[in-house]
Amino acid sequence: MSVSRTQVAIVGAGPAGLLLGALLAKAGIASVILEQRSAEYVLGRIRAGVLEQIAVDLLDEAGVGARLHREGLVDDGFLLVFGGRVQRIDLHALTGKRVVVYGQTEVTRDLMDHRAGAGLPTVYEAEDVALHDIESGRPWISYRKDGVEQRLDCDFIAGCDGFHGVSRTSIPASVLRTFEKVYPFGWLGLLADVAPISHEIAYVNHTRGFALASLRSPTRSRYYVQCALSDRVEDWSDDAFWAEFRARLPDELAAKLVTGPSIEKSIAPLRSFVAEPMRHGRLFLAGDAAHIVPPTGAKGLNLAAGDVGLLAQALAEHYRGSDAGIDDYSRRALARVWKAERFSWWFTTMMHRFPDEGEFAERMQRAELDYLTSSRAMQTAVAENYVGLPL
Amino acid sequence: MSVSRTQVAIVGAGPAGLLLGALLAKAGIASVILEQRSAEYVLGRIRAGVLEQIAVDLLDEAGVGARLHREGLVDDGFLLVFGGRVQRIDLHALTGKRVVVYGQTEVTRDLMDHRAGAGLPTVYEAEDVALHDIESGRPWISYRKDGVEQRLDCDFIAGCDGFHGVSRTSIPASVLRTFEKVYPFGWLGLLADVAPISHEIAYVNHTRGFALASLRSPTRSRYYVQCALSDRVEDWSDDAFWAEFRARLPDELAAKLVTGPSIEKSIAPLRSFVAEPMRHGRLFLAGDAAHIVPPTGAKGLNLAAGDVGLLAQALAEHYRGSDAGIDDYSRRALARVWKAERFSWWFTTMMHRFPDEGEFAERMQRAELDYLTSSRAMQTAVAENYVGLPL
Repeated sequence: MSVSRTQVAIVGAGPAGLLLGALLAKAGIASVILEQRSAEYVLGRIRAGVLEQIAVDLLDEAGVGARLHREGLVDDGFLLVFGGRVQRIDLHALTGKRVVVYGQTEVTRDLMDHRAGAGLPTVYEAEDVALHDIESGRPWISYRKDGVEQRLDCDFIAGCDGFHGVSRTSIPASVLRTFEKVYPFGWLGLLADVAPISHEIAYVNHTRGFALASLRSPTRSRYYVQCALSDRVEDWSDDAFWAEFRARLPDELAAKLVTGPSIEKSIAPLRSFVAEPMRHGRLFLAGDAAHIVPPTGAKGLNLAAGDVGLLAQALAEHYRGSDAGIDDYSRRALARVWKAERFSWWFTTMMHRFPDEGEFAERMQRAELDYLTSSRAMQTAVAENYVGLPL
Repeated sequence: MSVSRTQVAIVGAGPAGLLLGALLAKAGIASVILEQRSAEYVLGRIRAGVLEQIAVDLLDEAGVGARLHREGLVDDGFLLVFGGRVQRIDLHALTGKRVVVYGQTEVTRDLMDHRAGAGLPTVYEAEDVALHDIESGRPWISYRKDGVEQRLDCDFIAGCDGFHGVSRTSIPASVLRTFEKVYPFGWLGLLADVAPISHEIAYVNHTRGFALASLRSPTRSRYYVQCALSDRVEDWSDDAFWAEFRARLPDELAAKLVTGPSIEKSIAPLRSFVAEPMRHGRLFLAGDAAHIVPPTGAKGLNLAAGDVGLLAQALAEHYRGSDAGIDDYSRRALARVWKAERFSWWFTTMMHRFPDEGEFAERMQRAELDYLTSSRAMQTAVAENYVGLPL
């Protein structure tokens, strides 16, 4: 067995783990990232594409914001479509803030390049990662790399390994409380190199089901339609997708639709999930390891960035002599997480067809938009959640 | 058979029918009110006690606001209680408007006194009321009074006879669409001549269930606790009510609780209901005949007042030569109704224990209040609904 040591062992090389590593490096704190998959696999995940100002600020702070500022599309608003009617939410007028459209894949790539450039250690394809002695002052991680058993000693472990990772399950069941809601539908997403119908993201409530017109760049579109959980991606040809997507668009957007072959097509279920607490002993959870939001409103990556922002700060305080930040991490992170969970749940509930809900529920959706259309206060409430509540 | 004639026949002498009659009289339009029950029975109904400014304005316009202004309690805000924490919603600071605490019984009494004083005809204990030829230009109503068959010819019929009345059911099923949600709990209400714990109404979300501290005057309290639909009022002694109510209050309010014998005690189910359209031929529905809200937020009487305000205006326009108001009545009334339905549904959903919902839903309630506490925009949205959206 080979033994090494670092200050903070980070499990998971997704954007949460990589951003944490970069923020820690900036603060002079050493980290090693262990990732079960290859770098290519991680980059192959197609995820959200909207960054809040807080996430942008953290990426800037970590020193990886250059390409994002060059290539990211700044959006001042987004579109809500109900019954063919388009209501723009003017984020900038309502909150003074904006969002940036920049794919999670690009964020991850920037963070990976930065980490490699700085010579910071990342172990990809680390097998059988297991956490040990997290309740002690000397936690450690065992794993196997290229057939050789490894031991990584550390001061702290950051569990950034997502919903299916080992970190959360390393917290004793007697300590961990979980909250979950599974939605009775999925999202069928298609990525294509065609010009987007709108550079501002459009969320569509339609009798046929929800649709989302998103984008990754001026030449790459990311579109979704709500589908049944029983649907299989093999049964959706590109043509079938485009027909269904077009059918849910209002005329003024449908007129701008350019179709083309899919680069990627997949079905994702929708889930709300929170684990409490987000710290146990020397283990801290961040991002999807602790909480999942349905993608409506694109809060997932932003919440993860917020978590690691708080955690990097707390760890830096620790090494300067105060444990106040560490002791308060779970409470502070969860306060923000629950509000984002609420917004994502509300936005999902307002925009989708729920197969088991009756017409009254559909009318509540329509009344909600009618009210939203007429109320600056409600538009402000929606906008301030969309651009991100303060840390 | 005795035959008589009026311009507008009003079915129902609750506050909606009486207010409509008063507004029509002001506009020089004749009306006859037919009421199945006695005046005493109508006054015996214990209902909501919060008036929006729009309702107060309409009562003033009808000339019946004097006692309301003398005896009504003007509230600048209300209290939301979650997990023992009290959050005041400052209605006046947020919207520039206020609400008036004045019981529906008192509103009804003022309207009855005014109608009697003006010598306007009301037929109480009108039996077997039936509507005829509402699709023609000459609708009429048959009923029996003191054993004598009666016929009332009219230009228009206003159906103000509540959820169980004959008016809505006189619209052909092929025309009428209804939307309904029944909530899985009831409200056990108690009226007592004790000083209220707060002159501002307090809405309490508690793990034991919702509680509401309302009032009718500085010496008369109206309190509620959420109960099971299977509960029977006979099984709730006054002592049991007071114990349960106290258990749901935060300490600072419980300390002010004065108990006493109940004057009235009853259990009411909670329902959301809307019928569309609100006009068919020469029949107009107003108030509970067309829509029911759960009582959370006290929108029932206020919606009824809004309906008859629109209807009185539309009928006055008709007699001045334009049918535009009449033709637009259903659309205009429903636009406001659905928004109030949304608010009442939202407020009910946020404040009650739902026996079949899990912990995630409870956390969404808590997150909603946490967010509300921190967001002036969300507080404004709640407040503008509470004081009443514009007609």
